[in-house]
Amino acid sequence: MKKLRFLACLVFIYSIVNGQSPEIKQIRKYRQENEKRIMNEFISFLSIPNIAADSSNIQRNAAFIMNMMRNRGIEKVQLLYPVTSGAPPVVYGEIVNPGASQTLIFYAHYDGQPVNPAQWKEGLDPFNPKLVTGKVDENGVFIPFPSTEGSYDPAWRIYGRGASDDKAGVTAILNAYEAVVKSGFKPAYNIKFFFEGEEEAGSPHLNEILERFGSLLQSDLWIICDGPVHQSGKKQVVFGVRGDAHLDLTIYASKRPLHSGHYGNWAPNPALLLARLLASMKDENGKVMIKGFYDDVIPLTAAEKKALKEVPAVDEQMKKELGIRMTEIPGKSLWESINQPSLNINGMQSGNVGKMASNQIPATATAVLDLRVVPGNDWQRQQQKVIDHIRQQGYFVTDHDPTDEERNRYTKIIKVIPGTDGYNAQRTSMDVPVARNVIKAVKSTSSEQVVLIPTMGGSLPLFLIEQYLKARTITVPIANHDNNQHAENENIRIQNLWNGIETMASLMMMDR
Amino acid sequence: MKKLRFLACLVFIYSIVNGQSPEIKQIRKYRQENEKRIMNEFISFLSIPNIAADSSNIQRNAAFIMNMMRNRGIEKVQLLYPVTSGAPPVVYGEIVNPGASQTLIFYAHYDGQPVNPAQWKEGLDPFNPKLVTGKVDENGVFIPFPSTEGSYDPAWRIYGRGASDDKAGVTAILNAYEAVVKSGFKPAYNIKFFFEGEEEAGSPHLNEILERFGSLLQSDLWIICDGPVHQSGKKQVVFGVRGDAHLDLTIYASKRPLHSGHYGNWAPNPALLLARLLASMKDENGKVMIKGFYDDVIPLTAAEKKALKEVPAVDEQMKKELGIRMTEIPGKSLWESINQPSLNINGMQSGNVGKMASNQIPATATAVLDLRVVPGNDWQRQQQKVIDHIRQQGYFVTDHDPTDEERNRYTKIIKVIPGTDGYNAQRTSMDVPVARNVIKAVKSTSSEQVVLIPTMGGSLPLFLIEQYLKARTITVPIANHDNNQHAENENIRIQNLWNGIETMASLMMMDR
Repeated sequence: MKKLRFLACLVFIYSIVNGQSPEIKQIRKYRQENEKRIMNEFISFLSIPNIAADSSNIQRNAAFIMNMMRNRGIEKVQLLYPVTSGAPPVVYGEIVNPGASQTLIFYAHYDGQPVNPAQWKEGLDPFNPKLVTGKVDENGVFIPFPSTEGSYDPAWRIYGRGASDDKAGVTAILNAYEAVVKSGFKPAYNIKFFFEGEEEAGSPHLNEILERFGSLLQSDLWIICDGPVHQSGKKQVVFGVRGDAHLDLTIYASKRPLHSGHYGNWAPNPALLLARLLASMKDENGKVMIKGFYDDVIPLTAAEKKALKEVPAVDEQMKKELGIRMTEIPGKSLWESINQPSLNINGMQSGNVGKMASNQIPATATAVLDLRVVPGNDWQRQQQKVIDHIRQQGYFVTDHDPTDEERNRYTKIIKVIPGTDGYNAQRTSMDVPVARNVIKAVKSTSSEQVVLIPTMGGSLPLFLIEQYLKARTITVPIANHDNNQHAENENIRIQNLWNGIETMASLMMMDR
Repeated sequence: MKKLRFLACLVFIYSIVNGQSPEIKQIRKYRQENEKRIMNEFISFLSIPNIAADSSNIQRNAAFIMNMMRNRGIEKVQLLYPVTSGAPPVVYGEIVNPGASQTLIFYAHYDGQPVNPAQWKEGLDPFNPKLVTGKVDENGVFIPFPSTEGSYDPAWRIYGRGASDDKAGVTAILNAYEAVVKSGFKPAYNIKFFFEGEEEAGSPHLNEILERFGSLLQSDLWIICDGPVHQSGKKQVVFGVRGDAHLDLTIYASKRPLHSGHYGNWAPNPALLLARLLASMKDENGKVMIKGFYDDVIPLTAAEKKALKEVPAVDEQMKKELGIRMTEIPGKSLWESINQPSLNINGMQSGNVGKMASNQIPATATAVLDLRVVPGNDWQRQQQKVIDHIRQQGYFVTDHDPTDEERNRYTKIIKVIPGTDGYNAQRTSMDVPVARNVIKAVKSTSSEQVVLIPTMGGSLPLFLIEQYLKARTITVPIANHDNNQHAENENIRIQNLWNGIETMASLMMMDR
């Protein structure tokens, strides 16, 4: 008995030295004993297509999550719909802990970005998850899912839409809760679960849902489990997000595609016009040339600047990993660049390339622009600056396909559709007590530095939570940084899923 | 009897005044009596997919044409293969006319440009031809093919790949021959038929075939039935074609697509790099900025300049029809522009647009450039000028996907694949006797001006015929100019098919 107590004590001391709390080791042990079941459930989850516009499959996803929650004894499991019917529902559930006076809401989303299966690597299929021994574009080998317990190598990856963004979040949160309870720990907070179904579509009904279910959703802090950990592999806590806005541009030339032999040199080429317009927007030094683009930005505070300084430099590592020598803004680090508003081309198309190419002058050319905004920017004002710039290049700007009369009147015609689903940036102070508790909890799971980020590059409509519920938000991401989220070949490194369970558990068990 | 002779005389005089010969009226009468059969055969022909790479369907097309020829009593019907087996064959046949000392070869091609059915207007299907009362993008209405004789309105159009480019050519030539023979006329020339099966793939084996079958293909003149009539609707005779060359460009940025939030502003965007590169190639006045691009051009002769002056001006009509106000080279007419070498973007793509758009920074950006060359230009020298220009913009130019080492060494990387199927321009003198006979024959079919064009905008590898067979070539096109060849919604206006039969018949009956 004494010997046992001594051993336990040694483990405890080792854990402290090692930066990981005994509670977290318990959580890890539970996960290790249940890996096969956790993984089987995750694979089934990933097999349900999850594009927000695909409502019948979205319903299947929601039902699957409700089942996951009920199996774990979570209460008041229900779907929250906006007043506008038909939108993907939020899956909600809660646990009231006797004696708890404060409440945490754990957020993740179960929908994924649209997919073009043809762009995925051969052998992969967005909604038929595959196990690979590494990265498919390096030396990863496809292998079958193992059937025995404890046989997952944590360096393996699971490929499929949502694997990291953000079904990994849902899975980590619910398995963390199960591990906490089954390991006999008592959370000091009430816990609510909020799983959104149209985040990748820009959360168009989140405001309605927050307004409609305002009393159900009362809390002190939302913990947002979405996005990747730091590129160094270290865990990170993120206090703010950029906002986001889009613009769809279509330049109109001839009414129909023309033979490039019979009309080349004479008929205007919309691809060339678009190239010229896009080239006018950003100079060779990555500076956006649109008037007033950097106005309105609120400077970082001293604490935020200090945190940024302590973020491990990853620029050289990332450049090597991505196979690039240049960055857009020469001399500026990734984190300096991200704390500026951005203009990025998501996609560009005119005519056809590759095997489908033909000797034509296309009729139109299209581009999708993505504008990220930082605290101080207004997303609609930012869109308007781009539109004003396009007008200054001599374009007639319209919101519809041009009529014959408009074609007859204007030399250069562009349709600009500003995305209506944009939103502003949001940032939580790093100095409030609950923020400090979060930092402490995440630190208890890792022997390494925990990176603190004032504002991350990605976007989530977190301003809505502040606006409708007066609650704070802090983002604690879990996915590997090279997860290909939002693109083909999305994947999660298994160790990141395991770490994510421990991180979420630490937050459920954190000090009040 | 006298009365009849008098009537015949009146008809003859009317014909002369009207510009149409009595022979042509006979041809027309025969066509009118056989419209339904001609059209049914044409529809069956268009229903066979005809992409050069689709070898089993190419074989079905070739067999169909052989059958058409045998049914018309044409002799020595056979397939001509290059030494390289497997390429689409030429379908050949001939008629030797006693007393004829000279030989004409009628050329058309039966393969079509690649199709992307998703880009065709709803209701259309590239290989399931449809009858429409006008243009589908105006007020044309889909109607079933009529089952009774003589019920085709000549303003109707048939939609399908190859409808105009160039199964209409094959159909016009073979039905012209049938009408000539069945109307009792005796051609003054021997006639050979040469139907190519990979023109739209750049005729990669035409040289081999011309070399291999040089003695079979001896002739005095090739008549090329391909391309559209003049935009005014007038018939035209074309004495030269531009040559053609391509370049496929791919700019490489990060090895994998990146999240535009997490990396936007920092990682290079290949779409923006491509936009900047393309914009550097041509200025706002349509002048190609690539060094030496306009060198080597042989100036037009006095006769050619005179012919160009007499070409009806169509610029204003075309601008109205195409819904454009601008042209690439301000102040220069279509015909002046076409007599210059051109640089045109056939297609451009990076990431996705529309419903497939996602918040990414794409990994690559691609464009296909089409270079048209005029007499004096060498197509490979012209490609090299573009490559030199790209190097001057700071790019490392490679012919393969970059290796890690190359990514580490070079800041801006582009893969350039120069098309190997290019060729030079070709031009036949307008003053030789056979050229004058052709002009006279085509004039006999029309009461309107026949437009004479020294060099048309489109391209055909006619220099090969000069090089291998020492024969002249003259192009006599028949398709409506708004036929959407090389793009979606390809169509033939039925009147153009009827006129094409008369034009081809006039050439088979022309003076020696």
